[in-house]
Amino acid sequence: MSSIDLNCDFGESFGRWQLGDEALLELVSSVNIACGFHAGDPSSIRRAVRLAAECGVSIGAHPSYPDLRGFGRVAMDLPLEQVHNDILYQLGALEALCRAEETTLRYVKPHGALYNRMADDWPLAQAVAQAVRVFNAELPLLLLCASPTTEALRDAGYPVKLEGFVDRQYLPNGRLAARSEAGSVIHDPKAAADQARQLAQGTVKARDGSSLTLSPDSLCLHGDGPAALTIARRTRHVLEAAGCDIRAFR
Amino acid sequence: MSSIDLNCDFGESFGRWQLGDEALLELVSSVNIACGFHAGDPSSIRRAVRLAAECGVSIGAHPSYPDLRGFGRVAMDLPLEQVHNDILYQLGALEALCRAEETTLRYVKPHGALYNRMADDWPLAQAVAQAVRVFNAELPLLLLCASPTTEALRDAGYPVKLEGFVDRQYLPNGRLAARSEAGSVIHDPKAAADQARQLAQGTVKARDGSSLTLSPDSLCLHGDGPAALTIARRTRHVLEAAGCDIRAFR
Amino acid sequence: MSSIDLNCDFGESFGRWQLGDEALLELVSSVNIACGFHAGDPSSIRRAVRLAAECGVSIGAHPSYPDLRGFGRVAMDLPLEQVHNDILYQLGALEALCRAEETTLRYVKPHGALYNRMADDWPLAQAVAQAVRVFNAELPLLLLCASPTTEALRDAGYPVKLEGFVDRQYLPNGRLAARSEAGSVIHDPKAAADQARQLAQGTVKARDGSSLTLSPDSLCLHGDGPAALTIARRTRHVLEAAGCDIRAFR
Amino acid sequence: MSSIDLNCDFGESFGRWQLGDEALLELVSSVNIACGFHAGDPSSIRRAVRLAAECGVSIGAHPSYPDLRGFGRVAMDLPLEQVHNDILYQLGALEALCRAEETTLRYVKPHGALYNRMADDWPLAQAVAQAVRVFNAELPLLLLCASPTTEALRDAGYPVKLEGFVDRQYLPNGRLAARSEAGSVIHDPKAAADQARQLAQGTVKARDGSSLTLSPDSLCLHGDGPAALTIARRTRHVLEAAGCDIRAFR
Repeated sequence: MSSIDLNCDFGESFGRWQLGDEALLELVSSVNIACGFHAGDPSSIRRAVRLAAECGVSIGAHPSYPDLRGFGRVAMDLPLEQVHNDILYQLGALEALCRAEETTLRYVKPHGALYNRMADDWPLAQAVAQAVRVFNAELPLLLLCASPTTEALRDAGYPVKLEGFVDRQYLPNGRLAARSEAGSVIHDPKAAADQARQLAQGTVKARDGSSLTLSPDSLCLHGDGPAALTIARRTRHVLEAAGCDIRAFR
Repeated sequence: MSSIDLNCDFGESFGRWQLGDEALLELVSSVNIACGFHAGDPSSIRRAVRLAAECGVSIGAHPSYPDLRGFGRVAMDLPLEQVHNDILYQLGALEALCRAEETTLRYVKPHGALYNRMADDWPLAQAVAQAVRVFNAELPLLLLCASPTTEALRDAGYPVKLEGFVDRQYLPNGRLAARSEAGSVIHDPKAAADQARQLAQGTVKARDGSSLTLSPDSLCLHGDGPAALTIARRTRHVLEAAGCDIRAFR
Repeated sequence: MSSIDLNCDFGESFGRWQLGDEALLELVSSVNIACGFHAGDPSSIRRAVRLAAECGVSIGAHPSYPDLRGFGRVAMDLPLEQVHNDILYQLGALEALCRAEETTLRYVKPHGALYNRMADDWPLAQAVAQAVRVFNAELPLLLLCASPTTEALRDAGYPVKLEGFVDRQYLPNGRLAARSEAGSVIHDPKAAADQARQLAQGTVKARDGSSLTLSPDSLCLHGDGPAALTIARRTRHVLEAAGCDIRAFR
Repeated sequence: MSSIDLNCDFGESFGRWQLGDEALLELVSSVNIACGFHAGDPSSIRRAVRLAAECGVSIGAHPSYPDLRGFGRVAMDLPLEQVHNDILYQLGALEALCRAEETTLRYVKPHGALYNRMADDWPLAQAVAQAVRVFNAELPLLLLCASPTTEALRDAGYPVKLEGFVDRQYLPNGRLAARSEAGSVIHDPKAAADQARQLAQGTVKARDGSSLTLSPDSLCLHGDGPAALTIARRTRHVLEAAGCDIRAFR
């Protein structure tokens, strides 16, 4: 364990509506910036890009299903060709705003229901990965550890980075316990930071107490809960105390 | 008069709703492709890009105010910073879809109410032109002939191409007569083609019979009227018969 | 067989985009008018209401998932409470436009993916039916014949009318064959009109040749295919020739 | 001065994005509830209606230009027929959600850019007023005091209530000083409450120190500033201490 990336969602305001705490920029090494389909208008996205660039934080695209009202959390049965083109559209839009701020995209992390579906839906995972490849073949996807489609994309030669979750309990098979199950969301900053340390060290304790081996390249911090900032601070502190650098993946 | 560009709007479908006649691609040398703000979803935009590329037609971006319901024809008092970022967003999105089809953007023609306002609103014209410059300093804007802001942008060093209108009557000062005035829209294909020839030759007869000197780089054909295809065919025929090549500007 | 209702979708334009043939109003007895979520802006909806009222055609609400881009055809995993409130919102909006034209809503037919899902999803069917009841307990729902949820709503005391499809092949169990199967969509006007007559008489031949007993209150004509008007004319003619009045259900 | 209404905007969340402080319901007598065009989705609107009904607060509709991204604050040159139908659509939608909560609409206050334009644009003011009349002829409009169109609507027989602003400086002619002018927005709770008392007593001091006679039926509190709750509390306290009941107009 020498270094790990810490990421959080960013740029999720829309018009009059503000969301997210800009103070998180001081604590993470990467931000997933909304591209306008679940959140973000061009001006709020540009502001997010500028702030991230100023803080030296790595910028990832956070494309979504087209669903402002549902914040990209509603599963939608879209034709794969549409998903593919939606991804291209969003990546291009965000890249133009990065160019205006003289910075650049470093990776792509799909958002919400799209991210979740990709973990089990191979044709969908391929449609997204092919769009990213067409856009820029060197841009890695940031995807769920321990998902069969993540492995399959890697095997197929797509650049993939693995993500672990600081504040969600794991099942013994490496998948996340459903939010609806008691205790599956970790609200206690100390417990979250401890899970972060375990993940960075490659072995995490699952919901049933069993040990699970995972090697994430990046740890996701949720930016919108009431304890978000506290969890982020403590996670960073615990990781650094354990000798782990917080650093964007390459 | 050796050559002139013929342009029309394209890619203005949205989801289930189809708009525009793809047969126009055989008659024009450039198409202004919608970018999703007044029309066009990522998949219909991509189809438009592919068809244009297959026909060897030059592709321009056709960015707009954010106004699907009003088809970008509603004047909106947006902050200039928002217009600037909206343009960047749309150019980037369209460029990504061009990249996927292995083709590229050649120019930018603002759409509808934005185009019209720019002709008289210098800060707005600058906000748009600066966005295009930030995106790609070599991309020309296609703007109304005989507008003071078009001249001013040129004087300020922005690459600008001049546009004339085949099917709209001109006022003696070079501006277009309002659509609400009788006769201001030319529906007769013969009259439209004749005006095209005059424009290509640099002297057009205004509404009051006076002569007007204009030197457009491109002539706009409207793609959505009932006689659109007939006007386009006859215009092309009349121009070629007069020894004028139909060719995209560079 | 003394009378039956003929319905089609209506009011599905949006802003600049026109859809549907107003000539159908002369042939049907009921129209399902879009409420703004999959199609229809307030002014195009109002026009549709006015035309229907002028032709003496019964007006039904055609509420949908919130999905303009997908025309309400994309299945969405929305919370039931949201579906419930979305239905209320749409019914109220359409009713206000009916009031302005001094006419009134007669029934509710859910649209697209929502209609299809309701046929097999009892909690969803209840969420919709309860919204309609809250809005106006006397307003019937127009739903698919031979669906278990249609029967269950009827058993639970909701006013329900049954719908058959003129241009879709039936499976032996009374459900529609998937559009993806060859021959499942009937394009031939003669065959469609013949199926309409069978449905009106209560016995329809299924895809496998078996006989199926159905007693629809209304027959659905699709308004947007190339042969829509021809199918509608012939269906009406064949039904009337068989002694069946075309009349809105009460 | 025996009683006056205190109103604030309400129900301005949208999907994931929360806005507004529900504690204001304890302090005002009326709330202007968003109808989905500038803010509010059906479920958040319904929640707002339910909370208002539970607190015994009078419910007004707060219809807007169709402009989620701009929060209804962008002036739009819409055809009057569209504005008219947009109002009907929104009133009907909100009424249906009120019906579901067994409560009812009491008045209509246009929102944002629409409200501001109506103060000087007689055709627009009429288009809105006629839509409200068509919907329910007894529903009053709540409009800016000292506007010529407000007076003209009253003269034309429309039911109109007059609104004053607690936290905005007045010009000597009774209009509001532009937000862009220094001091025009009153942030000090004491000064705001003092202006409220003056307004309730019928004489307010203008920006230039002159005295101005106004007799508002309702005072508007902005719900979204940082001091919103403090201003509301102090305003209510000062008015009650001066012997003025806080009570919805009838």
